Amino acid sequence: MSLKLYYSPGACALASHIALEESGLAFELQKIDLRQGEQKTPDYLAINPAGSTPALVTDEGVLTENLVIMAWVARGAPKLTPEPDSFAFAKMQSFNGFLGASLHPAIGRVLFAKPPLEGEARAVALDIAMGKYRLVEDSLFKGPWVMGENYTVADGYLYVFCRWVKAAGLLDAERFPQLNAHITRMQERPAVQRALAVEGIAAV
Amino acid sequence: MSLKLYYSPGACALASHIALEESGLAFELQKIDLRQGEQKTPDYLAINPAGSTPALVTDEGVLTENLVIMAWVARGAPKLTPEPDSFAFAKMQSFNGFLGASLHPAIGRVLFAKPPLEGEARAVALDIAMGKYRLVEDSLFKGPWVMGENYTVADGYLYVFCRWVKAAGLLDAERFPQLNAHITRMQERPAVQRALAVEGIAAV
Repeated sequence: MSLKLYYSPGACALASHIALEESGLAFELQKIDLRQGEQKTPDYLAINPAGSTPALVTDEGVLTENLVIMAWVARGAPKLTPEPDSFAFAKMQSFNGFLGASLHPAIGRVLFAKPPLEGEARAVALDIAMGKYRLVEDSLFKGPWVMGENYTVADGYLYVFCRWVKAAGLLDAERFPQLNAHITRMQERPAVQRALAVEGIAAV
Repeated sequence: MSLKLYYSPGACALASHIALEESGLAFELQKIDLRQGEQKTPDYLAINPAGSTPALVTDEGVLTENLVIMAWVARGAPKLTPEPDSFAFAKMQSFNGFLGASLHPAIGRVLFAKPPLEGEARAVALDIAMGKYRLVEDSLFKGPWVMGENYTVADGYLYVFCRWVKAAGLLDAERFPQLNAHITRMQERPAVQRALAVEGIAAV
């Protein structure tokens, strides 16, 4: 089985990268620099017509979306998810779906909108986005890992988005004690350290 | 097994509703009117702290996100998805993930932003959103169903978003022949007709 992950440093594909590092599977990496527009080249659009990262090239074809790639990678490493036909697995994917469909678009508007949001528009968007982090902190996060006692791929996915807001000075330590502690816990993992080093990005 | 779906008429939970109708499983429905703010009542937040629809209450707990609920429902009706451990299933979920994480937020901003977008801001958001429909029309949709020869839950999910833009006069018949034909094909299905009737919403 050959696996090749297309990623952009520090972008959301870091979640799939961490899952691969945690899995112990062999894989290749190919950098697609979103800031340079490399996701819109004909070569990359032939791989992923949506022009987004991540994309995972497998022997059977190309998969996209972090929650799909992470679940696929975890098939070879069951310790990274509950059993795929279990309710616990579906619950984990509900959480991952919330991150991908709700939290990511919300914080993406605050951090990456072009042109950048300003003034009242930014304040409104920021409150909406941080409300989703508060929901994770107060309700969805079980501790010590996202789903409870066991580490799952959901932890790598959450880490990506917490890393963004911590780096931006938005993850107040008193308001978000669980999410800050989770960042620390994640960055102690050798697989996360390897992924950060390879992508050339810093711990936060 | 008891199943209860919380939905808002015509909103994205219609995809999970259609999957339930197609499955032949017994289920209950509970309306949560998003326009009335019913998703923010303490009773509903106890079910889904994110205050969004859909939510599916099962004997084992609550699931959220259409792509998770649809896959869970389809476990009892394998004809609605490829085998859950297959590459074809992962590929279907990549498509569903794109709808949930990319197309839905984009068209949601155009149709449902509060306050509504106007002028240049709306024009930019509309072009971004319709670009995602063009991607489905030109690249992702295999035909006659989303994934090819076989109907899957992805068809119900796509239908929801095509229904919105067709009702808004945005799904030009010449530019989007496949998506318009798909709407027609979907609305011929008895399960879809039942779901529309129960939600009290019109075919388009």
